[in-house]
Amino acid sequence: MSERGDMAEPLVHGDDFEDPVIEAAEASHDEDDRLKPEYLTAVLDAVEDGDSEKARDLVSPLHPADIADLLELAPSERRADIAAALGDLVGAEVLSELNDYVRDDLIGALAPEQVAEFASELDTDDAVAIIEDLEEADQQAVLEAMEPEDRAAIESALAHPEESAGRLMQRDLVAVPEHMTVGQVIDYLRDSGDLTRDFWEIFVVDEGHRPIGTCQLSWILTCPRGVPMSDLMKREQTLIPVDMDQEEVALRFQKYALISAAVVDSSGRLVGMITVDDIVHIISQEAGEDILRLSGAGEGDINEPVLDSYRARVRWLLTNLLTALVASTIIGIFEGTIQQMVALATLMPIVAGVGGNAGSQTMAVTVRALATNQITGSNARRTILREIRVAVLNGATVAIVLGIGVSLVFQNMALGGVIAAAMVTNIITAGLAGASVPLAFDRMNLDPAVASSIFVTMITDSMGFFAFLGLATAAGLTG
Amino acid sequence: MSERGDMAEPLVHGDDFEDPVIEAAEASHDEDDRLKPEYLTAVLDAVEDGDSEKARDLVSPLHPADIADLLELAPSERRADIAAALGDLVGAEVLSELNDYVRDDLIGALAPEQVAEFASELDTDDAVAIIEDLEEADQQAVLEAMEPEDRAAIESALAHPEESAGRLMQRDLVAVPEHMTVGQVIDYLRDSGDLTRDFWEIFVVDEGHRPIGTCQLSWILTCPRGVPMSDLMKREQTLIPVDMDQEEVALRFQKYALISAAVVDSSGRLVGMITVDDIVHIISQEAGEDILRLSGAGEGDINEPVLDSYRARVRWLLTNLLTALVASTIIGIFEGTIQQMVALATLMPIVAGVGGNAGSQTMAVTVRALATNQITGSNARRTILREIRVAVLNGATVAIVLGIGVSLVFQNMALGGVIAAAMVTNIITAGLAGASVPLAFDRMNLDPAVASSIFVTMITDSMGFFAFLGLATAAGLTG
Repeated sequence: MSERGDMAEPLVHGDDFEDPVIEAAEASHDEDDRLKPEYLTAVLDAVEDGDSEKARDLVSPLHPADIADLLELAPSERRADIAAALGDLVGAEVLSELNDYVRDDLIGALAPEQVAEFASELDTDDAVAIIEDLEEADQQAVLEAMEPEDRAAIESALAHPEESAGRLMQRDLVAVPEHMTVGQVIDYLRDSGDLTRDFWEIFVVDEGHRPIGTCQLSWILTCPRGVPMSDLMKREQTLIPVDMDQEEVALRFQKYALISAAVVDSSGRLVGMITVDDIVHIISQEAGEDILRLSGAGEGDINEPVLDSYRARVRWLLTNLLTALVASTIIGIFEGTIQQMVALATLMPIVAGVGGNAGSQTMAVTVRALATNQITGSNARRTILREIRVAVLNGATVAIVLGIGVSLVFQNMALGGVIAAAMVTNIITAGLAGASVPLAFDRMNLDPAVASSIFVTMITDSMGFFAFLGLATAAGLTG
Repeated sequence: MSERGDMAEPLVHGDDFEDPVIEAAEASHDEDDRLKPEYLTAVLDAVEDGDSEKARDLVSPLHPADIADLLELAPSERRADIAAALGDLVGAEVLSELNDYVRDDLIGALAPEQVAEFASELDTDDAVAIIEDLEEADQQAVLEAMEPEDRAAIESALAHPEESAGRLMQRDLVAVPEHMTVGQVIDYLRDSGDLTRDFWEIFVVDEGHRPIGTCQLSWILTCPRGVPMSDLMKREQTLIPVDMDQEEVALRFQKYALISAAVVDSSGRLVGMITVDDIVHIISQEAGEDILRLSGAGEGDINEPVLDSYRARVRWLLTNLLTALVASTIIGIFEGTIQQMVALATLMPIVAGVGGNAGSQTMAVTVRALATNQITGSNARRTILREIRVAVLNGATVAIVLGIGVSLVFQNMALGGVIAAAMVTNIITAGLAGASVPLAFDRMNLDPAVASSIFVTMITDSMGFFAFLGLATAAGLTG
């Protein structure tokens, strides 16, 4: 039964427990469940020495997800050799667990027939994940090498837009009419043999194959055989339209604590099922990608080819260069004042920098709240007001500390007053911009994480320099 | 069966479908499944007019998760009134879905007996989530008002550290000995009546109540009655130690695509079960909190009291003030050079700012990769080298554009050369710091997201000013 074998974790802290599986896990994994460097080195050495058998012995106790980790952790130029040495240990499940970039590399080295064979072993959604990233021609070759039935399933999934429910769903599911009883359902399941082995609920459909209810397996197992499905099923259920974006799907799974959900086409017919194990990756990815977008890091994957990372990031840095010019121009206006008192040049980055930081804080909070649907038209104004309140408190505190410090160090009360006033102005501006810029982008249906930070930084930099140098000029400060 | 009623979503795009539930959903929800502002206003107005019946009519079609959203979206001073008007529509499930801050507010207004009643209706893990945040005295009062059995379950959960598996798990689960057959298990489930209704796998245990295998319900349903559990069960399984941190638990669920998992104590006995629906919140929260930590925004919850947000953020801004002083001091060293050529003061924030941005990009990528266990001792050096490669490309590109631009605008080739050299130096420094600072914190077992950005910003600011002003001084630039 190793084909569905999850692996035991290193878990027992007492020493009254001896289990070869756990001991193997301790040899390969550290306490955080990551593969140990020594272990990886041992595998790499075995492969390098041409000792495939030793490599396979080392790797065979691993869960497919760990074999995928092993390939990702290995240097990219060694991965093909390792995969070759491990042979069928690198199977369909390992491929489906691999990072996209690493998988594309490995698959590039395989014959279409091999890819087709792997894909056939997987659920539609996992097979699609492997095939969708291939070049058009390779995709065609793989599809042609597949059994007609599998090919049809995958082609129909590929017909849906990328990152839509249609790509995520599997087509194997259990649907029964409502007149069936619990006993009949159990008999049907036993007779049908090779249904999909892993499913968590049974969908009840009408004659038009439209879902009218759903039934968890635990309800079926705890009910007498005679109960009709129509009495047992829950009529209200969250249905996922086949064209729904995966981010939305993930939010529904989270909000309604779903384990699986029916996918319906535009006429309401049941066409597939999405299970939560395919969603947890998306939840993590969607929640984690805001941090990458806010910083302009693109995909932000450590396995991404260097040139792709360069292209994504340099675009952002060049945009940033343009916005930095705005701040620079503002400083230029006050060159005369700086000439009279060079200390201003020394102090001005503090006002801009701390303001920028305050803006980042507010922006991070707002972007997260938007991503989790916590802000709507109902509380947008309240959220901005709240952020301004926090900014007033922050601004006052930082301004007092900075103002007193500067007054003392430079023995110049006026300079201390000017920098304090500029600081409080800039932190309040930062709070306002940090909350309202992402909200404005969201209202325009643009991703607030992608463009906000460029604007907020430009605003806090410019306001920092303008307020400080402008007030210094107005106060007639001279060294 | 409304007690387990999920609600149908607005889902059908054709108009050949008329369903009162869907129509109600369309009245209350926008296309992103968020409550419409008009709908919220209607509920608020009804409550304000004292028309509880109308308010209840409006709210009764909602899923508990949506009622929780409604309370969160309402202004904080109105929430108690709304909850009072809605009466038993705001039940245990709604409470367990509420944002922590909003829930604490509402629960503060309830009698301990009421809280105890709500808690008794929930699974242990949800009840614990409600009770664990109460003040010590309130917690005691609630526990005393509970039935002894429920109280014992909750007290034993509270004995585990916060954010540990022991707090997350529910104690109701189905465990059977391995000699039972599929048929016997089904008969046992039918007879036991009120087991936990929602479960996804059955654990097989030895005489010491230690898990030795696990069996998905779908396997049981598709097997003949005579098959013994020992043949059907999967022996390898991911066991969760009761003291494991919830972040680790979430990573295991993700990595091994778990739906539920057995929790064991230090002697390996089965003490509880964690299900994926309790984990998806944690996955989202853990993935999303890095963005908040990197910016020093603390909890970053829009429902957090203003004073708490102030306290969390001002600490960060004051630290930032200190590090900004370092950069400021470096500028101070070169006051003489700036005096000779004020244009340097105009341009220096560009070098620091774009460098800071490049650092943020690398830092975001590294922090995410660390959070998802993608970086270990095996590939840490490789990751740093990769980031430096990207930085060299980025630095060269930005330096060329900036250098040529400055040369032309200021008609000063030397100035252009100096700023280009400073820019490339700073972006490479940023790549090195952005990758190695989080890695160093991680190696010291500190959270890389919490402290990294302070250091990286300090490094890129200081290096930006130092490289630019230092090279300008060395080149003997004068206005």
